[in-house]
Amino acid sequence: MSLPVSPLAPKGGFPKLPEIDGVRFASVEANVKYRGRDDVMLAEICEDASISGTFTRSKTRAAPVLWCQENLAMGAQSGGSAIVVNSGNANAFTGTHGLTGASAMATSAAETLGINPRNVYVASTGVIGEPLPIDRITGKMGELRDRLDAKNAEAAARAIMTTDTYAKGATTSVDLGARVQIAGFAKGSGMIAPDMATMLVFIFTDAKIDQSVLQEIVSANTDLTFNAITVDSDTSTSDTLVVTATGRADMDAITTFNDPRAAVFAAALQSVMLDLAHQVVRDGEGATKFVEITVKGAADNGAAKTVALSIANSPLVKTAIAGEDPNWGRVVMAIGKAGEEADRDQLSIWFGDILVADKGWVSPDYREEDGAEYMKAQDLKITADIGVSEGQATVWTCDLTNQYIAINADYRS
Amino acid sequence: MSLPVSPLAPKGGFPKLPEIDGVRFASVEANVKYRGRDDVMLAEICEDASISGTFTRSKTRAAPVLWCQENLAMGAQSGGSAIVVNSGNANAFTGTHGLTGASAMATSAAETLGINPRNVYVASTGVIGEPLPIDRITGKMGELRDRLDAKNAEAAARAIMTTDTYAKGATTSVDLGARVQIAGFAKGSGMIAPDMATMLVFIFTDAKIDQSVLQEIVSANTDLTFNAITVDSDTSTSDTLVVTATGRADMDAITTFNDPRAAVFAAALQSVMLDLAHQVVRDGEGATKFVEITVKGAADNGAAKTVALSIANSPLVKTAIAGEDPNWGRVVMAIGKAGEEADRDQLSIWFGDILVADKGWVSPDYREEDGAEYMKAQDLKITADIGVSEGQATVWTCDLTNQYIAINADYRS
Repeated sequence: MSLPVSPLAPKGGFPKLPEIDGVRFASVEANVKYRGRDDVMLAEICEDASISGTFTRSKTRAAPVLWCQENLAMGAQSGGSAIVVNSGNANAFTGTHGLTGASAMATSAAETLGINPRNVYVASTGVIGEPLPIDRITGKMGELRDRLDAKNAEAAARAIMTTDTYAKGATTSVDLGARVQIAGFAKGSGMIAPDMATMLVFIFTDAKIDQSVLQEIVSANTDLTFNAITVDSDTSTSDTLVVTATGRADMDAITTFNDPRAAVFAAALQSVMLDLAHQVVRDGEGATKFVEITVKGAADNGAAKTVALSIANSPLVKTAIAGEDPNWGRVVMAIGKAGEEADRDQLSIWFGDILVADKGWVSPDYREEDGAEYMKAQDLKITADIGVSEGQATVWTCDLTNQYIAINADYRS
Repeated sequence: MSLPVSPLAPKGGFPKLPEIDGVRFASVEANVKYRGRDDVMLAEICEDASISGTFTRSKTRAAPVLWCQENLAMGAQSGGSAIVVNSGNANAFTGTHGLTGASAMATSAAETLGINPRNVYVASTGVIGEPLPIDRITGKMGELRDRLDAKNAEAAARAIMTTDTYAKGATTSVDLGARVQIAGFAKGSGMIAPDMATMLVFIFTDAKIDQSVLQEIVSANTDLTFNAITVDSDTSTSDTLVVTATGRADMDAITTFNDPRAAVFAAALQSVMLDLAHQVVRDGEGATKFVEITVKGAADNGAAKTVALSIANSPLVKTAIAGEDPNWGRVVMAIGKAGEEADRDQLSIWFGDILVADKGWVSPDYREEDGAEYMKAQDLKITADIGVSEGQATVWTCDLTNQYIAINADYRS
């Protein structure tokens, strides 16, 4: 099936990504599953780059995820690095065959590029439980090498799409002594039976920064970006984020988190991560509304995030939003079920700037028609103050529509 | 809107409930919100009955729930007891007005019946955030008293319905020295914007049993029945279960859990609770499939239940079931995201008796057409062995269909 582009897609289309010194991309049509489009991408990364990653916490995570986590645990080997990704087959829940496939993809890329296989990061996305057609991927490795070019980031972003309705890219630059570029792309959250949502994100920068500092920044940023979005509360077996810093910028290396430039870089990287995270939500299956949910007044920030995600994942809240219904009672319900401390009689809720509920009851000034008018907007904000302490968090989600059911129930692969 | 009766409704309609010695019911049309149907019910209970209850753990629970919990904490007062319930207005999130309303309902019933208000249990279900029209309810109390009759259980069951598509009743009997009757009714899980799903359950028996033993049995049974069902993962602010034992049966009282008759009674009560719990799932919005999910091989029973509920609440699993898609990959995903220990390479999954996945990969004998044929059935069983230890749990749910979205998004109240 071919889905129309999400109405929430960025208006400008895929952004023009800058070339990142030290990184070249290639993509190719390998017919892993799809026909008539590229479905394997290769990123070649220069020597001495810092590579960090975060991954799904699923207990049934896929073999490529385990391979990457082992790479990070072992630390960088000498020489260059690479990332190989295929779409159409997730290489997940395929027993010992899974690790064989991930290892073969890495080894093939390593031999072709003359680097250590343990410097090769692999990811697979698509159908699960089917054996990966390894030869189709490894057989294209020479062609991929020949096509490598720093200009190919957008083509690489398209090669990793599954049922995404648009390719997702983001970029920024920041002054760290030198002008440093940050650019990345992501896929998700499209899915089609029997596929699962998987989110893959690859970000590149020419910043010079130690791997340990980069990893610390990436992990902290992930909590506030990719781990603060939800489409349907279902967690993929393959979620992968890899951030590569080539170190080619003309700057002194950032070697400690206490370097004041670390915070500057972290903020710039976070803006790219947040942009990509929002684009993933905006491509949620069947989405017609993009919703920012902020919870204030919680016992701590963690409690605030739990409550915010309880609202964001509630099918009743999400269907009310789809129906443009200012149904604040369902927000109360979702706060109540979250399990975190909340003071019902201090609870206040805003839709946008409209105070809907004030200290435990509907606000005396609230008019239902104001709420109904607000809910017609495409981008919505819901804020709740749960009246306990100072904890705060923001998460992002989309609505739950008939089209979500159609994509996941009515269509068969 | 008027919904068609769920295709999963029990074929025989509402069961014939036996009269329970010591309990009389009445219902009346009070126009709390609905027109042309009874919407308030009164149950009068004899002196010296044992009354126990379990309630929502929501942090935003409604005033009637708080009232009932206070009753139980204070212990039974001398004299008779009563239960008063209205539909159409949940008396939830209504500030201090909420407790005023719950108190007024209890006081009015108490004065009319000549009993202590603290022996009156109240429940309200329907719209939230709107002030309860107390006078409409209290003004009907005399009429309710005049209509009290042991034969009126079915009419009482109908008076507490909101958007349920059928009234839910269940009964059994058990020999505890005397033949003891158990009968009860429930409402849920229908909802309509801006209502929330609320589940109310009232069960009556003439067994003679101490309140403390009864409460212990009810609490333990709830974990395996009402707390093991889910329609959409959203927890009501008003969920209430009250079990009343009148003690009128000609038997020696059960005064300790060690009395061998306690286990016999507990099992009989559990069968009624489970029957009602299943009927609530079978009336889940838009449901076309009833699904039993069993998880084995978990670290302990609690872990098994967490994993089973992760499967039961997954929108991807529920939409696959709606689409009759034997999508075991989504079951793997839901197990993985549950956060409990699982051994991916020991994981096995059955659809009915069909072994689909065996020790970490699709079973060599599995044929997709067998799975697809099985999924056409109305009642389905999914079993997963997660290969860690001996923990086991079973939960029940329904599928997620377009009709769920229609009920909760497209229609406005």
